[in-house]
Amino acid sequence: MVELSQTLLNLPVLICRLRGDVVQVETWISASGKHGHTGDWLVRDYITGETHLRATSSRYLMIDKKTRKLSFLKEAWADQIKPHVLDCHEYPIIMGDNRKLLQILDVDTADYVRTGLSPLWNDLDINQYVNYHIKYISWILEGAPRSFLESHKLSAMTVEYRKECGRESMLHNLSAVSRNGTSATNSTDHFTEDEGIEFDHSLYLQDGSEVLRARTMWMPKSI
Amino acid sequence: MVELSQTLLNLPVLICRLRGDVVQVETWISASGKHGHTGDWLVRDYITGETHLRATSSRYLMIDKKTRKLSFLKEAWADQIKPHVLDCHEYPIIMGDNRKLLQILDVDTADYVRTGLSPLWNDLDINQYVNYHIKYISWILEGAPRSFLESHKLSAMTVEYRKECGRESMLHNLSAVSRNGTSATNSTDHFTEDEGIEFDHSLYLQDGSEVLRARTMWMPKSI
Repeated sequence: MVELSQTLLNLPVLICRLRGDVVQVETWISASGKHGHTGDWLVRDYITGETHLRATSSRYLMIDKKTRKLSFLKEAWADQIKPHVLDCHEYPIIMGDNRKLLQILDVDTADYVRTGLSPLWNDLDINQYVNYHIKYISWILEGAPRSFLESHKLSAMTVEYRKECGRESMLHNLSAVSRNGTSATNSTDHFTEDEGIEFDHSLYLQDGSEVLRARTMWMPKSI
Repeated sequence: MVELSQTLLNLPVLICRLRGDVVQVETWISASGKHGHTGDWLVRDYITGETHLRATSSRYLMIDKKTRKLSFLKEAWADQIKPHVLDCHEYPIIMGDNRKLLQILDVDTADYVRTGLSPLWNDLDINQYVNYHIKYISWILEGAPRSFLESHKLSAMTVEYRKECGRESMLHNLSAVSRNGTSATNSTDHFTEDEGIEFDHSLYLQDGSEVLRARTMWMPKSI
């Protein structure tokens, strides 16, 4: 028996919505390579049609339920989902693959360390694994100091999933500022305040294996 | 400035719903004493009208935003909500006040201790307090061993909130079996399996103050 697993999420937030706003969500699947699929989402304002959020989660892969190792996409299953997969050259909507830019962090290179993260019982799916983006994203957000989270808003995020997180896991988050728009790194590379701040994040299990690495982009709340 | 705070939740789950079922939710407010209000909910099957869940959260109280102490319900505010409050003798739908039965636990009387619970950034409301039932309930559920959570289903819950939980809080959960339907406590008190198991829970801050106490009732999943 196999199950689908997702490895990469690209999520630029274009405009933050206010409570009470009505939005419409469009989502579709397209093929990605021989064994994978890409899921895309568009969140638009229901009245104006303006796009507020684009997201691409790519490289859905098959994992053997027992061994937890990668498995080939079975022909029978591929035929089953084929009618639901779009064959369109315009997709995915976010073409850039930021994975190569994502840095691995260790205690020496990290600016912030957050320990003591663990899933609660209701964070686990039916297979007893943490399988919800929202939980991983909340662990990623813990990497930045809270004063920063209050003064800035998240504007984009790339997450690369590398290992599953099961019950009884204890995790820690290493985070580092990878680009700060408020300071110039050299004479030819002047960033300005409104270019925002980028963080790199790595989430580790106690045995040292990396659960995910991520990059978040933040803008000051005043903008 | 004052804000509403809720102190008691009574939640018997009558029938667990399956994914894909459609339900309808009814909710209303009625007066409770001089300064409080009661909120009631009924969750029914959309097709058959059968009741699946009843809930009463009583004693909404006013708290001063700065001092975090209890405040009297201002007349002006009371007039404002009056048109929305039902004047009906049938309510609240759950009459029993189980607060007197809720036991305070300490390390000596607890069967299970779960430490290291803390709110993440996205568990906090705009006032920087944990203000979501779901978070407190997930901390309560951590009190029972996971093997028990897998073999049983939650059938009722009473929660009494006693203190607010803010950012940077570290909490621990003490839990004890208060009634076990699978064993007879004496010759005249024979419980049977299908009467379920009751747990008492207390959630404490590191300074020893009690955030809440709760009782949960569980039934075997086979029933």
